[in-house]
Amino acid sequence: MSDASPVKVAIIGASGYSGEELVHRLLHHPQAELAAVTSRQYVGQTLSQIFPRFAGQGVADTLQFTEPNSVALAAAAEIVFLALPHGVAAEYAQALLAAGTKVIDLSADFRLNDPAMYEEFYGKPHPAPELLSEAVYGMPELHRDNIRSARLIASPGCYPTSILLPTAPLLKAGLIKSTGIIANSLSGVSGAGRKPDVPFLYAECNESVRPYGIPKHRHLSEIEQELSLAAGEQVTIQFSPHLIPVTRGILTTQYLAPTENFKTAVEEQVLAQRLTTCLAEAYDQEPFVRLLADGVLPDTKHVTQTNCLDLAWRLDRRTGRLIMTSAIDNLVKGASGQAVQALNLLCGFDETAGLQ
Amino acid sequence: MSDASPVKVAIIGASGYSGEELVHRLLHHPQAELAAVTSRQYVGQTLSQIFPRFAGQGVADTLQFTEPNSVALAAAAEIVFLALPHGVAAEYAQALLAAGTKVIDLSADFRLNDPAMYEEFYGKPHPAPELLSEAVYGMPELHRDNIRSARLIASPGCYPTSILLPTAPLLKAGLIKSTGIIANSLSGVSGAGRKPDVPFLYAECNESVRPYGIPKHRHLSEIEQELSLAAGEQVTIQFSPHLIPVTRGILTTQYLAPTENFKTAVEEQVLAQRLTTCLAEAYDQEPFVRLLADGVLPDTKHVTQTNCLDLAWRLDRRTGRLIMTSAIDNLVKGASGQAVQALNLLCGFDETAGLQ
Amino acid sequence: MSDASPVKVAIIGASGYSGEELVHRLLHHPQAELAAVTSRQYVGQTLSQIFPRFAGQGVADTLQFTEPNSVALAAAAEIVFLALPHGVAAEYAQALLAAGTKVIDLSADFRLNDPAMYEEFYGKPHPAPELLSEAVYGMPELHRDNIRSARLIASPGCYPTSILLPTAPLLKAGLIKSTGIIANSLSGVSGAGRKPDVPFLYAECNESVRPYGIPKHRHLSEIEQELSLAAGEQVTIQFSPHLIPVTRGILTTQYLAPTENFKTAVEEQVLAQRLTTCLAEAYDQEPFVRLLADGVLPDTKHVTQTNCLDLAWRLDRRTGRLIMTSAIDNLVKGASGQAVQALNLLCGFDETAGLQ
Amino acid sequence: MSDASPVKVAIIGASGYSGEELVHRLLHHPQAELAAVTSRQYVGQTLSQIFPRFAGQGVADTLQFTEPNSVALAAAAEIVFLALPHGVAAEYAQALLAAGTKVIDLSADFRLNDPAMYEEFYGKPHPAPELLSEAVYGMPELHRDNIRSARLIASPGCYPTSILLPTAPLLKAGLIKSTGIIANSLSGVSGAGRKPDVPFLYAECNESVRPYGIPKHRHLSEIEQELSLAAGEQVTIQFSPHLIPVTRGILTTQYLAPTENFKTAVEEQVLAQRLTTCLAEAYDQEPFVRLLADGVLPDTKHVTQTNCLDLAWRLDRRTGRLIMTSAIDNLVKGASGQAVQALNLLCGFDETAGLQ
Repeated sequence: MSDASPVKVAIIGASGYSGEELVHRLLHHPQAELAAVTSRQYVGQTLSQIFPRFAGQGVADTLQFTEPNSVALAAAAEIVFLALPHGVAAEYAQALLAAGTKVIDLSADFRLNDPAMYEEFYGKPHPAPELLSEAVYGMPELHRDNIRSARLIASPGCYPTSILLPTAPLLKAGLIKSTGIIANSLSGVSGAGRKPDVPFLYAECNESVRPYGIPKHRHLSEIEQELSLAAGEQVTIQFSPHLIPVTRGILTTQYLAPTENFKTAVEEQVLAQRLTTCLAEAYDQEPFVRLLADGVLPDTKHVTQTNCLDLAWRLDRRTGRLIMTSAIDNLVKGASGQAVQALNLLCGFDETAGLQ
Repeated sequence: MSDASPVKVAIIGASGYSGEELVHRLLHHPQAELAAVTSRQYVGQTLSQIFPRFAGQGVADTLQFTEPNSVALAAAAEIVFLALPHGVAAEYAQALLAAGTKVIDLSADFRLNDPAMYEEFYGKPHPAPELLSEAVYGMPELHRDNIRSARLIASPGCYPTSILLPTAPLLKAGLIKSTGIIANSLSGVSGAGRKPDVPFLYAECNESVRPYGIPKHRHLSEIEQELSLAAGEQVTIQFSPHLIPVTRGILTTQYLAPTENFKTAVEEQVLAQRLTTCLAEAYDQEPFVRLLADGVLPDTKHVTQTNCLDLAWRLDRRTGRLIMTSAIDNLVKGASGQAVQALNLLCGFDETAGLQ
Repeated sequence: MSDASPVKVAIIGASGYSGEELVHRLLHHPQAELAAVTSRQYVGQTLSQIFPRFAGQGVADTLQFTEPNSVALAAAAEIVFLALPHGVAAEYAQALLAAGTKVIDLSADFRLNDPAMYEEFYGKPHPAPELLSEAVYGMPELHRDNIRSARLIASPGCYPTSILLPTAPLLKAGLIKSTGIIANSLSGVSGAGRKPDVPFLYAECNESVRPYGIPKHRHLSEIEQELSLAAGEQVTIQFSPHLIPVTRGILTTQYLAPTENFKTAVEEQVLAQRLTTCLAEAYDQEPFVRLLADGVLPDTKHVTQTNCLDLAWRLDRRTGRLIMTSAIDNLVKGASGQAVQALNLLCGFDETAGLQ
Repeated sequence: MSDASPVKVAIIGASGYSGEELVHRLLHHPQAELAAVTSRQYVGQTLSQIFPRFAGQGVADTLQFTEPNSVALAAAAEIVFLALPHGVAAEYAQALLAAGTKVIDLSADFRLNDPAMYEEFYGKPHPAPELLSEAVYGMPELHRDNIRSARLIASPGCYPTSILLPTAPLLKAGLIKSTGIIANSLSGVSGAGRKPDVPFLYAECNESVRPYGIPKHRHLSEIEQELSLAAGEQVTIQFSPHLIPVTRGILTTQYLAPTENFKTAVEEQVLAQRLTTCLAEAYDQEPFVRLLADGVLPDTKHVTQTNCLDLAWRLDRRTGRLIMTSAIDNLVKGASGQAVQALNLLCGFDETAGLQ
């Protein structure tokens, strides 16, 4: 640990689930100090009053929610997290960047490079297209160096994280075809946010499982952008999200076609070895991607409350497919943990600080 | 079954959880016909559109929600159920009764005999005090004959049902003291209604249990009224509701003091026999109260989707107390099933019609 | 309803979840009488003692579990349900059929026509291969006429039901390709049976979702057999089951390739019309398959406790795929409800008797 | 933090839920080193293989389960935790103490001072009565000094923790009567352990709530022992445990009688002030007992994964009672967290080490 004084950070929109998880991580971060939190609804109340689980932890009993004033926040913090709904974050980012403050945005506002794609998937013109070219997609495993020097980091979506990490290295290595990819994802209800909405009431979600947003969910845009970057060509995938009755967790099952045939046991072994090597090269040094042992499949309960993505794959000679399964905590590696990982890179901290 | 044409019934406020359960029971009732359902929010949509589980059942694919117009409903139905929030039901009841329609009200508006008690517990003057004297508390096991001839039935609350049925016969028989009664109750989240409210989101209720409304929950008023009637003297009790992560079900544990001491095994046996006899006399002929066998305790999963209350008790010689435990489905025996039971009495049907 | 005396039925292995659901349906069946239930573990205890929810219902308070004696059961019942583990059912089936009793088997023992496939997927020679040719796969929507005249009915598996009903008619009509089919399925924990096994404890399943049995789950054998029959050629599919924290319910999402291209809006409309017509012809008269309205997707909570399969589909012009989603209750349409449907066909009853 | 080399600790019975939580805390403890873990069932497998959530953490990928050999463990560790079933722990404790190793026992074997009470509640003679007099009941808030110098610590039960902490200071101060105490407790299913048992299957516990073990649960013995110590006289209480569908958490609601009357608002204020002062004196300096603010009631979700007990109380002038509600995580403050707290005291570490 460094002896330097801690970096002051702030969170705009700290009262939602991602905001709460950010608070949790930053309260215990050895090199960051939570200097301000905002929530229009809770102005004047302390973190502990709104989140009783934080009582007695660090500044939680004294730090009060304020109005989201960009000038004040730029003065109070060196780095500001935006945990706001899509479309609302851009305005704050503009003001904060103009004031010289770095921004880590957890919304989708800066994840796409192309404003036309934003308009196609989000249904309106991008509110700050001039910032898109400098925004860095904040997935450390794919863009670590760019994150280190960014002013504006677009922290990835939860579904995209669960899909990209398993697939991008294989595409990059040419081990799987860039066509015909299918991602079938299951998400816990916290992914819908802390909004009062009938479909997310306990009595509506308990003993229920349902697909939604098929066939063209908004997250497709950033998934395809990043897969295309990895493949070096335009990738179009099938993505089907489902809501399941857990609070936290995403489980994604992907159906992929290896570029090589593997009709015999020998061919399967050769291919398996290539896949093993490719994934080991990509992830053996990564602190938050775990390649599961033979015979083990992911289970969200093993990654809940952690910043880890668990990954396992199977080849099926009957169908010629590769099946990849991954699990994350949607609020940690799928949101706030990944954002703290970006903070650590940005500040030159140990990448795992505050995440263990 | 009678050959007569079915009784036409309507539901005002059919889009909440109690309303939905009423619809469920009435769609399959052999002698009732669901003639109208209202919901401001869903006017023009069919029952199946709002409740896909009813698709293909009876009139569910054709019957549309309408505005809650008392004149139209009085014309369409002989009996109208009110599944409305407290305070809203009274106005409809007045208009419907004036038009000659009978009313079964599932709200708390007519459960109290005393308008002063209503004002104490509900914080405003009663909206229709002139109707309180004729309203009948719709618990068949306690007021069967009055229900048969009523114009206005106040269907009991869910917590009160789980508390009154175990305790009232013992108080009436003088087997327990009328002082010192404690009811500790646990309720599923559907009891909070289908309202978009953050505390009842899945991610707030899952992996959570919490007391609320202590020490003076509104339901105390009707509980004490009915216990006092049973005891023949004023009864004041302790009642603590808790929210638990199930969709349906109430489990109540009551702590009671027998009027007789039972310090020896023989005294315990004598008392146990008296309790057994008292409860058997009260409930052996009741279709919906089940006295559990020796060694068995209630479990909400055994009463879910049924109109049954399961009941078991234990004497504790160490403390001198009688412990009574009961389980119901808050939406069936605790709300809509009990209301249908009242309908059956009102119409002279078999009391179990539509409830099995 | 017929005036004839009810058909006497028995259940071997009535203490598991499928057995319990069978008991539930048969206790209320208007034309069947539950004459015997067996469970080695519970011999001498009544149905109500083991399943308190049935207390007070029909014979539940008096009918006692017996040893599974084929001779006695053949004497007591005209039709016997086998709710036994795979591999155990065959022996009972042989003895019962020899005694002239018809058998509805809920295990996998007689679902496959080919004993070699049984051995491949179940890891041992088939225990009664001589019966395979006459056993009828008990899915009424696919084999109604054969069920009516069968002596031995192999009631389908839960996953296969959720996969076959959406896909078989389209394959039969040549509207989708027989290659490349993927079925991604999610099942509630009751599917694992009432066996004391650590992975199915509450604390292991709650807040958990996990794939299992990939890529070659046993149910593949019967799925591919029936899809091949529909397609008129050998079909090999990808099938990935997952365990989710609900008690009941299966949600299956299938990825299919239409035989016709649909790159333009007009082509999509034409294809959509063909699909609509094909499914309507297959299912409009079926009492238990519901084609959801435009804009609605299945949710297991709408089919729980019912014998219905809910079905919706989407075309995706971006990928050229057809996505079909379906929901059932694994214990009803996926097991015991479908078995009762077969009973009704076998006996000439209304096909919905005991199922509404 | 000390510069000294870490204390070596071992866990016997590390594969259950308490064992897993101990592993979790000790893997991250700054001054303890997990030197050995035992599990007959998993000999030769690493911690990560059995608990995939620990993969990549500390020694989890290399430390293997061994047979529970007291000689080997005494050589490997200075302090040994016993996470074993009741009745099994005593034998290991004897051998380890004889070898000079200190023991923190999470079972009930050494919680009672009186072997006769053990026999009454556990149904057999105590296996090592000679150790009872020196064993210290490991609740730091009540016995901190004794824990510091103990050789054998009996870590408290989960229910007792949730009951004793709220009530003991009030009894000690004479603010509540020692008679008539009622504790109504709700526990998550992990409290039943990782044992394959039908009543704790997901499909049995989900959508279910049930009392059990009333009126004489085994935990009564240690509760009454400690309350009697606090009161200075024999205390007998009513205790009713219930099982609720959460993985972790205990919520206890206690009904108590203040020694002073409080019939007027003024009397209530005076009493409230005394209670406030008494609890503040007891707990303001305690790191793991949180007195909730006015208007807030406990919720298990706020203490899950923490070593905190949250506490709130209400006076009811209508009934003359004091109601105390408390929440803990049964596996942390109710088991393994409290055991680590004892370890910290025993070793002179910061009491919160490994617990934040």
